[in-house]
Amino acid sequence: MTTQSTPNDAAAVPLLGPVAHRSRLGSTITVGIVGATGYAGGELIRLLLGHPNVKIAGLYGRNRDNQPIAASHPHLGATGLVIDQAIPEADAIFTALPHGVAAGMAPEIVARGSALLDVGPDFRLHDPADYPNWYKFDHPAPDLLARAVYGLPELHRKEMRAAAEGSPTIIGLPGCYPTATILTLAPLARAGLIGDLAVDAKSGVSGAGREPKPDLLFSEINESVKAYGMFDHRHTAEMEQELQQQGERGTFGSRDANPGVATVDFLPHLIPMTRGILASCHIRPTRPVTQAELDAIYDEAYRGEPFVQVVTDAPSTKHVYGSNLCRIWVRVDPRSGRILALGVIDNLVKGAAGQAVQALNVIFGLPETTGLEQYPLNP
Amino acid sequence: MTTQSTPNDAAAVPLLGPVAHRSRLGSTITVGIVGATGYAGGELIRLLLGHPNVKIAGLYGRNRDNQPIAASHPHLGATGLVIDQAIPEADAIFTALPHGVAAGMAPEIVARGSALLDVGPDFRLHDPADYPNWYKFDHPAPDLLARAVYGLPELHRKEMRAAAEGSPTIIGLPGCYPTATILTLAPLARAGLIGDLAVDAKSGVSGAGREPKPDLLFSEINESVKAYGMFDHRHTAEMEQELQQQGERGTFGSRDANPGVATVDFLPHLIPMTRGILASCHIRPTRPVTQAELDAIYDEAYRGEPFVQVVTDAPSTKHVYGSNLCRIWVRVDPRSGRILALGVIDNLVKGAAGQAVQALNVIFGLPETTGLEQYPLNP
Amino acid sequence: MTTQSTPNDAAAVPLLGPVAHRSRLGSTITVGIVGATGYAGGELIRLLLGHPNVKIAGLYGRNRDNQPIAASHPHLGATGLVIDQAIPEADAIFTALPHGVAAGMAPEIVARGSALLDVGPDFRLHDPADYPNWYKFDHPAPDLLARAVYGLPELHRKEMRAAAEGSPTIIGLPGCYPTATILTLAPLARAGLIGDLAVDAKSGVSGAGREPKPDLLFSEINESVKAYGMFDHRHTAEMEQELQQQGERGTFGSRDANPGVATVDFLPHLIPMTRGILASCHIRPTRPVTQAELDAIYDEAYRGEPFVQVVTDAPSTKHVYGSNLCRIWVRVDPRSGRILALGVIDNLVKGAAGQAVQALNVIFGLPETTGLEQYPLNP
Amino acid sequence: MTTQSTPNDAAAVPLLGPVAHRSRLGSTITVGIVGATGYAGGELIRLLLGHPNVKIAGLYGRNRDNQPIAASHPHLGATGLVIDQAIPEADAIFTALPHGVAAGMAPEIVARGSALLDVGPDFRLHDPADYPNWYKFDHPAPDLLARAVYGLPELHRKEMRAAAEGSPTIIGLPGCYPTATILTLAPLARAGLIGDLAVDAKSGVSGAGREPKPDLLFSEINESVKAYGMFDHRHTAEMEQELQQQGERGTFGSRDANPGVATVDFLPHLIPMTRGILASCHIRPTRPVTQAELDAIYDEAYRGEPFVQVVTDAPSTKHVYGSNLCRIWVRVDPRSGRILALGVIDNLVKGAAGQAVQALNVIFGLPETTGLEQYPLNP
Repeated sequence: MTTQSTPNDAAAVPLLGPVAHRSRLGSTITVGIVGATGYAGGELIRLLLGHPNVKIAGLYGRNRDNQPIAASHPHLGATGLVIDQAIPEADAIFTALPHGVAAGMAPEIVARGSALLDVGPDFRLHDPADYPNWYKFDHPAPDLLARAVYGLPELHRKEMRAAAEGSPTIIGLPGCYPTATILTLAPLARAGLIGDLAVDAKSGVSGAGREPKPDLLFSEINESVKAYGMFDHRHTAEMEQELQQQGERGTFGSRDANPGVATVDFLPHLIPMTRGILASCHIRPTRPVTQAELDAIYDEAYRGEPFVQVVTDAPSTKHVYGSNLCRIWVRVDPRSGRILALGVIDNLVKGAAGQAVQALNVIFGLPETTGLEQYPLNP
Repeated sequence: MTTQSTPNDAAAVPLLGPVAHRSRLGSTITVGIVGATGYAGGELIRLLLGHPNVKIAGLYGRNRDNQPIAASHPHLGATGLVIDQAIPEADAIFTALPHGVAAGMAPEIVARGSALLDVGPDFRLHDPADYPNWYKFDHPAPDLLARAVYGLPELHRKEMRAAAEGSPTIIGLPGCYPTATILTLAPLARAGLIGDLAVDAKSGVSGAGREPKPDLLFSEINESVKAYGMFDHRHTAEMEQELQQQGERGTFGSRDANPGVATVDFLPHLIPMTRGILASCHIRPTRPVTQAELDAIYDEAYRGEPFVQVVTDAPSTKHVYGSNLCRIWVRVDPRSGRILALGVIDNLVKGAAGQAVQALNVIFGLPETTGLEQYPLNP
Repeated sequence: MTTQSTPNDAAAVPLLGPVAHRSRLGSTITVGIVGATGYAGGELIRLLLGHPNVKIAGLYGRNRDNQPIAASHPHLGATGLVIDQAIPEADAIFTALPHGVAAGMAPEIVARGSALLDVGPDFRLHDPADYPNWYKFDHPAPDLLARAVYGLPELHRKEMRAAAEGSPTIIGLPGCYPTATILTLAPLARAGLIGDLAVDAKSGVSGAGREPKPDLLFSEINESVKAYGMFDHRHTAEMEQELQQQGERGTFGSRDANPGVATVDFLPHLIPMTRGILASCHIRPTRPVTQAELDAIYDEAYRGEPFVQVVTDAPSTKHVYGSNLCRIWVRVDPRSGRILALGVIDNLVKGAAGQAVQALNVIFGLPETTGLEQYPLNP
Repeated sequence: MTTQSTPNDAAAVPLLGPVAHRSRLGSTITVGIVGATGYAGGELIRLLLGHPNVKIAGLYGRNRDNQPIAASHPHLGATGLVIDQAIPEADAIFTALPHGVAAGMAPEIVARGSALLDVGPDFRLHDPADYPNWYKFDHPAPDLLARAVYGLPELHRKEMRAAAEGSPTIIGLPGCYPTATILTLAPLARAGLIGDLAVDAKSGVSGAGREPKPDLLFSEINESVKAYGMFDHRHTAEMEQELQQQGERGTFGSRDANPGVATVDFLPHLIPMTRGILASCHIRPTRPVTQAELDAIYDEAYRGEPFVQVVTDAPSTKHVYGSNLCRIWVRVDPRSGRILALGVIDNLVKGAAGQAVQALNVIFGLPETTGLEQYPLNP
C-alpha cells in the first residue's frame, strides 16, 4: 500500500502561528454552552466531549434548569450531563441562540473575561446598520460588535489570533450558507474574477433549527423541494460583506457604487435531508479565464488548509457528512466561458459547531484540527 | 362557499381549435406503449387506463414477452395486463426508450399509419447534427426527424395539430428538465428579456430511470445532494433550441453569433426524493423591468392554459405531485434588478407521461385535460 | 394482449344491494367537510372534487373563516375553494377532527338530517366506557354512539346500509391502523385461528396529523425509526372490538374471560415516509393449518371486493400509494407452523378519506368504487 | 453541573481480563481489510484510521488493484489510500465479503499467523450443516469453522480471549440483525422466560450492501416499506444458535425436541433510511413476570458493558447513529402480561465494522472502547 498526499492529516497542520495569551497547549480549557438544547448546541456537546483539551464546565438552556441532557439530546443521555441554572463560568462561552439574544448577554460574558464564540448572527456583521436592515433589530452592543472578528479561520485566522491577545475576545461565527459560499468564492473574489453571480444553495432541514414550525414537519418536507427566503435571506449580508472585502478589485470592491453588480443573488432551497449544504455558484467572469488559472488560484488559496479540500470529482454533501470538511469543485465551462464553483459542508459541523471548535482552537493556540479529526460518515 | 376562478377546471377548456383528421371525439383511440416496463411506461399505463377515450391495445418491453405487468409494475398488477411479443398495432404508439432506439423503430411505426409519440429524445432536436454532438449517435432517420414536432402544447399546439392532419405524425415529447425550464422562461425569451441566465435545476431520482446503477442506490442518494452533468447535460440542447426560437430579439436570437451569451448555463442536481423537478432560473435582464411588466407578460402567456398556473407563493414540487400541472413563480429582485423565475412539475407526469397524454389529446382533437384531471397528491 | 381477471375493475362491482332511501344514483349528493384544513380533510377535498355524484357544499375549519384553501392546501389552491364560517348544510357531513370534537357537534348535524361520516374516533367504539379508558374523555352523546355503525364496508356493509335507511345515520369510520389490521386478520378471526397474536405496524408520518409537534419535525423523523404508543395506543380498542366480534369461536370470542389471550399485542412504529401503513401480523394458530386452507379462507372473504387484493408477492406500501386499495399477503411458515399475515394501505386513503368516500357510496346507494378509481402512484 | 453515571465513559472500562498473547497495549497492531470497497469495508477504514493502536497495512478488493480509495469511498479520498494487489500481511485480517468467499481464503490467512475477523457469515454457525441449509453452500473449511468463536463480546468475551491465546484465531462476527436481536433477548433467554417469540426487525438499506440491484434503487425504497425474507432469512440461524445456547432452560433449550417452539419467528423489513436497525421483540413469557424482575435481569446482564445501554425511554435508531452503541428497552405489558423488548443499533457499526473493531480490541488485549469512543451523530 502506497500513501498519497493527505490533506486532512493532522500531522500536516503545524501549530498555527505564535501562541496567544489564551494559549492552553497542555492544559485544559473550560467551556460553557448557552443554548445547549438546540441542534447546534447538541453538536457542540458531541464535539467538545471528544476534545482532549476541553472540559465542559456547564450547559445552559432557557427554562430547562436542572433538566437532564437526555430530555433534549437523547443520543447524549448516557453522558449524564444536566442543564445548569445560569450561564456557566468558563474560559470560553459558546452561544447558540436566536438572533438578538447573544448580543444582550455579551456584556456580562465578556466582563467575566470569558472569550465569547457566538454561533448565531449577532457578531457577524461589521456595520451596525445591517442589523435593523437584515435582522429587524437594533444591535444592543455596538461597541462590542466593533471588537468582534468574523470567525472564518481560513480567511481571518490572523484577526482571530489578535482578538485572542486582547480583551474582549468576541468571535462572530459565520452562518452555514456563508461558510460554504464564501469558502467556495473567496479565491475568485480575491482574483477579481466575479462578474455576474448567482448562488443557488441547497440545505438540509436541520439548518432551520428545532422550533416546531408547520413548514418543517416531516410530511411537508419529505419528497419535495422548494426555494425560500427569496431576495431577503439574512445570510446574504454576510456573503456580501466578506466577498466585497476579499475583492480588492472587480465587482465586489464597491457595494455602494454599483449595487446592481456587487450584490450576491442568493437563493436558498430546502431539501428533504437533515444535514448538508451544497452551494452552486454560477459566475460570469470579468474576463476569460483558463482551467489552469483556476486550479492555481484555488491551490494557492487552500494548500495546507486542514479542512478545505479542492477536488476534481463533483462533491456531494455526503462526502463531508459529520465532519468539519469543506469540499470545493471549480471549473470553467469550455462552451460558454462561465465558471461553475460548487462547495459542500455539513451545516451543523463546518457550518456551525465544528467551525466554533476550530475557532476555539485558533484563539487558544491549539492545532486547529484538535477534536475535529472525525472522518465523514458514509453511507 | 364562494368559488374563485379555477385555472384547471376542465369546463374552462374549450375544445382547442379545429378538429384534426385524427379527431376521435366520441370514439375510442387505440394506443400501444413500447417501453412499458420503465417508470415513464408505468405512468403512461396508469394515466391511459383512466382515459375515457383510450383503449390500451398492447404493451411492449424488451425481453419481457408474455410477462404479466405485475413483474414490472406491481402497483398495476391487478389490471391483468401482460407484455406483448411485438409492437402493437394502434392509432397511436408511445415510445419510452433509451436514446436511439425509438428512431430505429419509427419507420415501421409510421408506415402502419400510427401516430408516434416519443417520450425519449429521438425526435426533440431539429438539427440532426445535435444528435452526435449531444447524444453520441447519428440519427438513423433524419427524414422523419424533419417531420417531427416538438411536443410542448403550450408553445407548439398549432404545429402539433398540423402534424396530426398530415402523415407521418411524429411528436418528439420534451424532456423533463426542458419542460420545466422552457415553460418557466419562454415568456421572458419572447420578450427579449434574458440577458444572462443560469438554470439551476433539482430533480427527483425517478428521472434517472430504472436501470440499476450504483449511483442510484438508496444508500447513495438518501441524505445527500449533488450536482451532475456539469456543462454537458443533454437536455441543454433542447432548452437552447426552444428558447432561441422563442426569442425574436434579445440574447437567444442567435446562438451562432454569440455563443457565450445565447447558451443556457444549465446545472442539474439529484435530490433525495423520487418525483419532482424545480427549475430555479436566475436572469439578469437585458433592460430594467418592473414586476407589473412581468405579471402582464406571464398572464398573457398562460391565461387559459389548463396546466400552467402562475402563482404568487413560492411553489414546491409537492404542489404538483402526481398531476400534469406546471406552477411558475416569477419576481424581479428590487435590490439587484435581477429576475428570479421558479418552475415546478412532476417529472413523470408533465415531464413525461402526462405531457404525452396531453399531446395525444391535441392530435386527436380532444380537450387537452381529458384523462389528466387528477389533482396533486398531498402530503 | 390478453387480459387476466381484474379485481379492481369497476365493471366487476355491481350496484351493491338494495338501494337505500338516501340513494342518489343519477342525482347529486351535497357534502360538507368539517376539519377541512388537516391532511385527511385535504384528501377528502381531493377525492370529492373528482367524484361524479358529489358537490362540495362547504368546508369548515376552526379559526379559518373565509380563508382561501390555498392557505391550508396549496396543491388545491387553483380550485378557488374557501373556508366557510359555519358547518355547511348538506346531505352528508364529513368530520375530520381531534377526538371529542365531532361527538360534540353530532347532535346538531344529525338534527338537520345530514348523514354524519366521522373520520375521527368518536363513533368507532360501541362501549361508551371505552372512551374514558382509551381516549380520556367521557362520550358526550352515548345515545348517538349507540346508533353509530363501524364504517368498514368489507365487514359491515349491511349495517351501514341499514343505518342509511333510518335516522340518524352515523358512520364511525375506522382508524388507519385498524383498517389495515382488521382487514388483514378478520378472515383468521372468523375461522377461530388466532391463538397468539402480535401486530407490529409501521406507519408514515402523515398519520400523526398536521399539528407542529417537535417529534414530527423532519430532522427528528428522517433517517430513523422508532416504536411509540407501547401498550396503550388508542387504536388497540378498535382492533379488539372488531376482531372479537368476528371471532365466533377461538381466542377473540371473549375479552373478559381471558384478557391475556384475547388482547391484541399492538405495536406501532413511525417510519421516515409520509404515507402508508404496513401491518405485520404474527400469529400462532389455535390449530395446525395448511396454506391451501388459508388461501381458501381469504378467497372466500374477499372475492369480489373491489378494494381488497389478496396477493402472493410481498406487498409494499408503495403498491397502494394514493389509492383506496388494501393488499394482503398471508402464509403459514412451514418450519414453525406460525401464520404471517401482512396488510398494506395508504393511511390517508383507505385509512381515512378514501374509506370515508367508500362509506358515502354505500349509504347513498352508489357503486362503491365511484370516485375511487385512481390507480396507485408509483414510483 | 453535576454528572450522573456515564455508561459509555471510557474511564469506566477497565482493561478487560488477562492480557492475551496477542496483547499489543502500547504497541501497534497492523491490520488488513479484504473487501475494502463495500459499505462495511468503508466503515472499517473510517474507524481504524482513528484507532490509536492500529496501522492499516493494506486494503484489498476484487478487481480494484491499485485503485485509489476515492473511487470506492469518496468521503475517504483525502486519505490517499489505495487498493493493493493481494491480501495484505498483517497481525489481523478483516474480511467483509459475500458468503463463501472468506471461508475459501481463511486457510491462507491463518497459515500466515494473522488473526482472522470475518464480518461475513462464514464463521458464525457452529454446525457445518447449517451452511448448505441456510446459505446454500458447503463450508470449505469445517476444521477451521470448529475453531471459530462467535464474536459477540457481550456474550463470548472469554472464548474470544481464549481463541486469541491459541492458533488459529478466527472470529465469526455476528450479523447485523442477530447483534440487535441477541443482545436484546439474551437476558430473557438465560432466564428461561421466552415462551412464544416474534422478532419484527426494521433495517436501513445499507445492510443490503452495495451491489446495484433493482430493488435497492432510491425510487423503489423511498416512501415505502416492505417485509422481505419471510421464513428464510439467513440470520435466523444465528439467532436460534445463540438464543438456544443462552437458554439453559425454557423454550430455547432444545431446537430439535420442539421445533415449533424453539424457533425464532423472524421477519425483517426494509425501511427508507440508510443506517440503523430496530428489533422489536414480542414475547409471551413462560411464566408471569414483573417489571422489577425484568429490570434486575437486564441490569445484571449489562451493568458495566460499555456499549450496551438499557434505557427507559423508547429508543430510536438515530440515538445510536454512527456509534458502537446498542440501546435496549424492555417492559412487561400490564394489560396482557406479554414482554416487549426493543433494541437499536447502527447496522454498519455495532452491526458490522464497530463490532469488528471491538473484537480486535478484545483479542489484542486493549480496552474494548479503543477507537470506538465516537458519540452518536444527531440529528
